[in-house]
Amino acid sequence: MAATPYQQLEQEFRRLHAFRGALSLLRWDAAVMMPRGSADVRGEQLAALETEHHALLTTPKVARLIERAEAGAAQLEDWQLANLREMRRQREHAIATPPSLVARLTRACARAEVQWVEARKANDFKLFAPMLAEVVHLVRDKAALLGQARGLAAYDALVDEFTPGVSTGDIDAIFKALARKLPGLISEAIEQQARTPPLPLAGKFSLARQKQLASDVLKAIGFPFDRGRLDESEHPFTEGVAGDIRITTRFDATDIFSGLLGAVHETGHAMYDLGLPTQWRDQPVGRDRGLALEESQSLLFEMNLCRSRPFVAYLMPLLEKYFQVSGPEWQAENVYRNLVRVRRSLIRMDADELTYPVHIMVRYEIEKRILDGALAVNDLPEAWNALLEERLGIRPANDVEGCLQDIHWAVGHFGYFPSYAIGAVIAGQINEALRAALPALDEQLAVGRFDGVLGWLRDNVYVLGARLPVQELMKEATGRPLTATPYLRYLETKYLAS
Amino acid sequence: MAATPYQQLEQEFRRLHAFRGALSLLRWDAAVMMPRGSADVRGEQLAALETEHHALLTTPKVARLIERAEAGAAQLEDWQLANLREMRRQREHAIATPPSLVARLTRACARAEVQWVEARKANDFKLFAPMLAEVVHLVRDKAALLGQARGLAAYDALVDEFTPGVSTGDIDAIFKALARKLPGLISEAIEQQARTPPLPLAGKFSLARQKQLASDVLKAIGFPFDRGRLDESEHPFTEGVAGDIRITTRFDATDIFSGLLGAVHETGHAMYDLGLPTQWRDQPVGRDRGLALEESQSLLFEMNLCRSRPFVAYLMPLLEKYFQVSGPEWQAENVYRNLVRVRRSLIRMDADELTYPVHIMVRYEIEKRILDGALAVNDLPEAWNALLEERLGIRPANDVEGCLQDIHWAVGHFGYFPSYAIGAVIAGQINEALRAALPALDEQLAVGRFDGVLGWLRDNVYVLGARLPVQELMKEATGRPLTATPYLRYLETKYLAS
Repeated sequence: MAATPYQQLEQEFRRLHAFRGALSLLRWDAAVMMPRGSADVRGEQLAALETEHHALLTTPKVARLIERAEAGAAQLEDWQLANLREMRRQREHAIATPPSLVARLTRACARAEVQWVEARKANDFKLFAPMLAEVVHLVRDKAALLGQARGLAAYDALVDEFTPGVSTGDIDAIFKALARKLPGLISEAIEQQARTPPLPLAGKFSLARQKQLASDVLKAIGFPFDRGRLDESEHPFTEGVAGDIRITTRFDATDIFSGLLGAVHETGHAMYDLGLPTQWRDQPVGRDRGLALEESQSLLFEMNLCRSRPFVAYLMPLLEKYFQVSGPEWQAENVYRNLVRVRRSLIRMDADELTYPVHIMVRYEIEKRILDGALAVNDLPEAWNALLEERLGIRPANDVEGCLQDIHWAVGHFGYFPSYAIGAVIAGQINEALRAALPALDEQLAVGRFDGVLGWLRDNVYVLGARLPVQELMKEATGRPLTATPYLRYLETKYLAS
Repeated sequence: MAATPYQQLEQEFRRLHAFRGALSLLRWDAAVMMPRGSADVRGEQLAALETEHHALLTTPKVARLIERAEAGAAQLEDWQLANLREMRRQREHAIATPPSLVARLTRACARAEVQWVEARKANDFKLFAPMLAEVVHLVRDKAALLGQARGLAAYDALVDEFTPGVSTGDIDAIFKALARKLPGLISEAIEQQARTPPLPLAGKFSLARQKQLASDVLKAIGFPFDRGRLDESEHPFTEGVAGDIRITTRFDATDIFSGLLGAVHETGHAMYDLGLPTQWRDQPVGRDRGLALEESQSLLFEMNLCRSRPFVAYLMPLLEKYFQVSGPEWQAENVYRNLVRVRRSLIRMDADELTYPVHIMVRYEIEKRILDGALAVNDLPEAWNALLEERLGIRPANDVEGCLQDIHWAVGHFGYFPSYAIGAVIAGQINEALRAALPALDEQLAVGRFDGVLGWLRDNVYVLGARLPVQELMKEATGRPLTATPYLRYLETKYLAS
């Protein structure tokens, strides 16, 4: 029997999945293994494969098959219908970003990135401004095209690429709730912690032993070293596909936790990717449900599960084994208090769990105003500094401490920042549902057992793949639509009640 | 001005080059970095990219462009014409191996390879024979199609894929010369060495130090670690492209030289690839001139240059530094005599420089007879054992020591074996020309200087790329057509005169 249009589509997307996996491996290699001088060669390989991926996705053949499959939708099952929707979504995104625009944006971003590095060296935003203006100009074009294709407002269309099914309205409502609570929470937590500040965890910690420790912890969590790798790179990241997942972290000899928690964070991503429905692994519906969901899974592991007293209790014998730590500062309670230290800082990447969302909300407000033209690129530094001071009570003294700190806008990532904070909110809500279902969770964490957590996540979150938009997925997974309440409750308990 | 057909072709082949580079990286990763459980995922990625590469090469568009470019050949320069010829050659090979045949051959080889492993375990060729027969059947189809497309006899067409411009007639002539000289040379060398056998180089040699030593030697040769890597794998190999070249070797704690010389061998490949004409790097004419040429460059470094007294002189202080070797067996002359020890052995991979070509000639005769039907697959073990006994004077006692030792036929590589021996012959001829041009070469090698060698190779061999067929390339590089005389002269001097 001849293949149906829907079956032919599955075949086409299977091939696209293989391309994505190859592209991911090329990126992993570039960050982890590639000799420094080979970036130009790798750039050509990535461009060739991405162009071909785009071409395969936008052929008239795929469009015709989607239409024919939709006409025969009555014959399809639930998951197949969802898969077809995701196919259409992917194709619309691809069609709306024609190769000519992508090429111009890629070139503009390449120039902007170089100039961003130079401007940081000179600590002078003005050197970067013209290139950023060019990027903003092209991102506006892209947003307009995407919005048209997806029937969304321009900025919503950018967000939709990263967090499908979450609108600017949803983000505004959530951020409003955070803005109401966080400032008070931050002040109170800082005040409370200042009364009995923790002893610092100073020392030199062998990188080799840190790596062994991280490997032990990842094994406890269940990271599959026979189908994945842990390596080191400039910044932690996750690449690869289920079946060959690659995470990285960065170890610091003077900080015993940053490398480990970086690895745990990426393991959260990896376990999500690995837990996605196996039978849909090579189809659009079998993918993760976007950046905010991804971030929720990594934050759940790093923040909710592992920056916790039970996890520290599990960790203590390992710290003693690998680093022979002893003394009052290495009492479990003091270690924990180091892990939840709150400080108002200028740099997002150094921010703690509690102040982090404030950094994101500042960027969200500013990038919307830049895109809709309310804020001129040249006025960015002043707007940034004023807004951060208003929201966090500290003011950058210069551009490097201010609006030059992130690479995101230079490389054209607008609509991306909110996913970090929405991810934390999702993690808070999932954490609450998880703990209601597993009352003994803390006892399990305290002995390094993650099977309970993972079983619940698999059954309630991972298994959904990309079958539903984020809002509906949250209802299915936790019984409630996305709301900031559980997240704020979690923060309050963690940072004030103890 | 619109691009000419020729310019459009360059654009198409630039893209194909990027695909080849990506495929090469995926293979490198599979052998060096990939977790064991991820082979299935990688298999899908390789298949998807190879299929797409094949599709891009065989589009009617490329055929039309080639015809139009050939019609306008009067406008093209020498290198462009050669590039166009190579484009046609690549396309003819691709067209002659349609995806359906390739898919059937790939499946048959996959089955044969599994069964080859099983048959080796059971030491019983009969378990492997039916699968090999199926592979032979499909290789015959492929050879017939390729022969038709290229206007060559079937077996010649297979050879042409690996060593363009060398015919069965050329190989026969060379092998006849070798067959006349080698048996006597081997007997005499063994006899001579038996009179004063070298002291063995026993010991345990730290793998980490072996790696440092190899790294030092590669740096002396000029391997560019900023655009290449040295890693470890099951068998040494070279992957990647100029600009990102990746070599591997395998270190053995009980053998101080096998890992180092494996790395030196692969460095010979790498230096060739890196020295190819830069401006044609991403075009067919800028590629290596096939397997035999590749092998000549690796053998030149391993055998002609480094299994030599001057290289041992350079190496001695490094051996003392890294392994604190001392005693009579670590006298330079004794070390050298270990490196040129001749033994009649049953296994090709363990064979020394002098007996190696005999193993190849046996395979060459047998694979031709299998392909033309003169020898039935079932009769292979007996034919193998008889021929090896006739040519080398030793007889395998079983199949693992005999016709089950190589993987090549299982994976469909027919017409490949001769390139190993032709490579050695080419290396011999290039070595003679090189030494005529650089009378002080030995003095340079003795202090670890390779700039003279590399300068000459770049100017006389590497620079030719794939502009000429092998025979003409040899005339251009050495002033003479390919002949076995210099190679035999080299062997005689090395193994008898000292």
